[in-house]
Amino acid sequence: MTKGPINLAISRRSLLTGLAATAAATVAAGSAALPRSAVKTWDMSTDVLVIGSGSAGVCAAIEARQAGAEVMLIESLSQFGGSSAMSGGVVYAGGGTALQKALKVDDSVEEMYRFVALAGDANPPLDKIALYCEESPAHFDWLVAQGIPYSEKLTLAKGLPMGDESLYFSGTEQAWPARELAKPALRGHVPGVDGMNGGRRLMEALLSRAYTLGVSLRASVSADRLVIESDGRIAGVIVTVAGESLAIQAKRGVVLACGGFIHNREMLKLYAPKLYECSVPWGNVDDQGDGINMGIAVGAAALRMHEGFAIAPIYPPENVLSGIVVNASGQRFISEESYHGVLGDAITYHQKGQAWLITDQRSGYNFHQDNFLPVAEGSSIDVIAAQLGFPLGALQQTVNYYNQHAINGDDPMFRKSKTYLRPLQGAPYKAWDLSVADAFFPAHTFGGLHTNLDGQVLSSFGDIIPGLYAAGRNTAGIPTAPYIASGLSVGDCTFFGRRAGRAVAALDGGLS
Amino acid sequence: MTKGPINLAISRRSLLTGLAATAAATVAAGSAALPRSAVKTWDMSTDVLVIGSGSAGVCAAIEARQAGAEVMLIESLSQFGGSSAMSGGVVYAGGGTALQKALKVDDSVEEMYRFVALAGDANPPLDKIALYCEESPAHFDWLVAQGIPYSEKLTLAKGLPMGDESLYFSGTEQAWPARELAKPALRGHVPGVDGMNGGRRLMEALLSRAYTLGVSLRASVSADRLVIESDGRIAGVIVTVAGESLAIQAKRGVVLACGGFIHNREMLKLYAPKLYECSVPWGNVDDQGDGINMGIAVGAAALRMHEGFAIAPIYPPENVLSGIVVNASGQRFISEESYHGVLGDAITYHQKGQAWLITDQRSGYNFHQDNFLPVAEGSSIDVIAAQLGFPLGALQQTVNYYNQHAINGDDPMFRKSKTYLRPLQGAPYKAWDLSVADAFFPAHTFGGLHTNLDGQVLSSFGDIIPGLYAAGRNTAGIPTAPYIASGLSVGDCTFFGRRAGRAVAALDGGLS
Repeated sequence: MTKGPINLAISRRSLLTGLAATAAATVAAGSAALPRSAVKTWDMSTDVLVIGSGSAGVCAAIEARQAGAEVMLIESLSQFGGSSAMSGGVVYAGGGTALQKALKVDDSVEEMYRFVALAGDANPPLDKIALYCEESPAHFDWLVAQGIPYSEKLTLAKGLPMGDESLYFSGTEQAWPARELAKPALRGHVPGVDGMNGGRRLMEALLSRAYTLGVSLRASVSADRLVIESDGRIAGVIVTVAGESLAIQAKRGVVLACGGFIHNREMLKLYAPKLYECSVPWGNVDDQGDGINMGIAVGAAALRMHEGFAIAPIYPPENVLSGIVVNASGQRFISEESYHGVLGDAITYHQKGQAWLITDQRSGYNFHQDNFLPVAEGSSIDVIAAQLGFPLGALQQTVNYYNQHAINGDDPMFRKSKTYLRPLQGAPYKAWDLSVADAFFPAHTFGGLHTNLDGQVLSSFGDIIPGLYAAGRNTAGIPTAPYIASGLSVGDCTFFGRRAGRAVAALDGGLS
Repeated sequence: MTKGPINLAISRRSLLTGLAATAAATVAAGSAALPRSAVKTWDMSTDVLVIGSGSAGVCAAIEARQAGAEVMLIESLSQFGGSSAMSGGVVYAGGGTALQKALKVDDSVEEMYRFVALAGDANPPLDKIALYCEESPAHFDWLVAQGIPYSEKLTLAKGLPMGDESLYFSGTEQAWPARELAKPALRGHVPGVDGMNGGRRLMEALLSRAYTLGVSLRASVSADRLVIESDGRIAGVIVTVAGESLAIQAKRGVVLACGGFIHNREMLKLYAPKLYECSVPWGNVDDQGDGINMGIAVGAAALRMHEGFAIAPIYPPENVLSGIVVNASGQRFISEESYHGVLGDAITYHQKGQAWLITDQRSGYNFHQDNFLPVAEGSSIDVIAAQLGFPLGALQQTVNYYNQHAINGDDPMFRKSKTYLRPLQGAPYKAWDLSVADAFFPAHTFGGLHTNLDGQVLSSFGDIIPGLYAAGRNTAGIPTAPYIASGLSVGDCTFFGRRAGRAVAALDGGLS
């Protein structure tokens, strides 16, 4: 493969991998399940034990508590909120939510379903998607009722609003081919707070609600092993608190909701080697895969373990979308306006981790940024093609073809929107490195436990594992690769977290 | 995506899927493990129970028996041999095998390792690859000693020999970029028999050897559930014989060796949706994933479940390699001489399942074949580009660029060998459909249980599951996607099957 001439001595990835390794070493590893017969006495008991305090776990806890169950929620870190609190706090919602209606945004459940079901590439969980879309307006009402503040403001700008707007295009709806598969609508619902604080605000509201309802919230408690009855039912969990091992009985069930595994480098390399290559593990430090591994240890199936959100955040600013993105053969392979997750997926999974953004005078980054470094610069495309060692004449041909059609407002190959379409002309031309290892290329995981619509964990034969529930990135949920819109992950966490909470609470107790 | 104008009313895939569904319905499904306490008495007992009679299982049985264990091998079908017997019977071997030496083929363990480790794309199991390469000459000697006949003849032609030659280039060694990563050598070792009978001949020899050694071979016995002790050790298997359920004790251990899951359509869709799209499930009808699922049910980790061998067998004849392969954007994306598994992988996983072979008068198929149907034909590239609806001018540009360099003996983009490189010129031009759904596009699965070098099955936490071994396509072994050479799968089956057999036999018995 062609490789840019500028090789940083230490790649961004290797720097960050070093950090992650340090973090991992401080986190206790889980282990296989413990037979119930090995637990002499329970140190504590509750109806429902939720593991993890991100949006999936807290929503499960709220619903289980509201259904009348006694609920304990444990968090391994000293602070609650999980990776959700670090996120933008976007929930992908539509089909006519109260906010869409208030802002006169036309949408339907069918168009939302078409987008989520069709705009990706993998085999998406259609049953989960259908339910998610049908109940999306009601789910948004529920989020509002928990105290999450949304403003009646929208923006048409691409990218997470840094102002207090609460509705925006969070995905690839307007880019080709998605816009031909479903009618685009603004569906990114984000707390109406300035800056990148949506996730924190969302979690503050949910945690406050859980606390008010009487969920027992315990920080700095890590889950080590599930306890399993001889008949296969999950009876409780062995946890560590301040170095001490305790057995907690969960009479109605356990909800695994402790996130993905982007920070477990060994597990990542084994299951999701493409994400391992990405420079920035994106998630809180305890995204170590413990919940997924505890599930696998009791016979759960795990799906889509190689998939994730590989992020190439080239916009904002939107002016760069008038540049072109090319692979190592100097060919375009995607509409540049595609959502970060769609572009990131194409580079990570389908272009061997390498791509370049080629810009002219007007389309370059016009402020200091170090997410994507310029690796070639010159007075002509010939010059940068030679600098980067593209196949002879290939980049020139790509630019000529693109320009020849752009001047007429056409992009026959990838149908870029007219907003961003114009010929590349005017030195300096630059090439910006979009490689997964050297660019700012965050990633997190989507693989997880196989669950039904109620969050019940399923075995390899499709059987329910009694007493075991999961939600969020502990599960293989709605987010698949390519990730087509911000808000599908936190949306999935909150929606299916709630369902898991209702389901686990509805079960009769009855252990010992 | 661009779609050819000729849509067959029923795709090849939908036809074959119908057949597969019928087959699946006749196969009993397995289920979760049974606690040892639920087995009152064992109906039968053996030291080692091997499940599956393909090359992995039979090699395990031979080695376990030679190590002094009492061995029973069960096969769910009425005939022995598994998918290995249906295969070409190629074993990828090198580093200086007796046959390579006899035929004066220069090779080294290091070059073989470089090829297998580097020419693919995924995260390959380097520990397994290193051992496999180091011991490859000795492993080939062992195969000869089992009575498999190899001729002292080689061929330089591409593709499985239909004559009695026993050594050939079975992979992508000579195609770019592989040839720059490792020095190419002939490493496909195939029984010296005419026609596509290598697999049958290989299995006849191995089965005969197992029988002679006193392995108890039982056909028409299907494995339903593992039996697990309260301490997690695998104690035996519940099987079905003529409608009757029997419990078989395996005092030293169980070896799961009953193949992949290409014929379990539901499982395939769940785990490997890209392979589900391929038109021809390739493997024997009992490749239902039962062994993999039984392993998962007792807490085993499963790796690379989405990967497989997606096969685009465009050659022979080699003259077609002077054509070019293009994607839906009319762009080339690979050297056309790449091995079937490399081309198939690129189309299946990275080009959304669509591609076309573009030929001129000399490079078209010059005999009747229906593997790849002509979907456009005309007096110029313009005509076929218009017929197929490629982006305006894109295919023309690709051909112009290719021709312009080919005339000078260059292929700057994909470095096709000079043997196949010449400009496309001379009507009729044709486009042949290489799509996964409508072309002859066989596939089988590579995902399976996580095992160590001795075939011991590992949990999600990396712990050994006592008494449980696996080999062949029940495991995540050396074959990964893209599949870079024929013979790596049967090679992995035979080599690690043997290791599993030695390991399981070496354990002390000790279950009451």
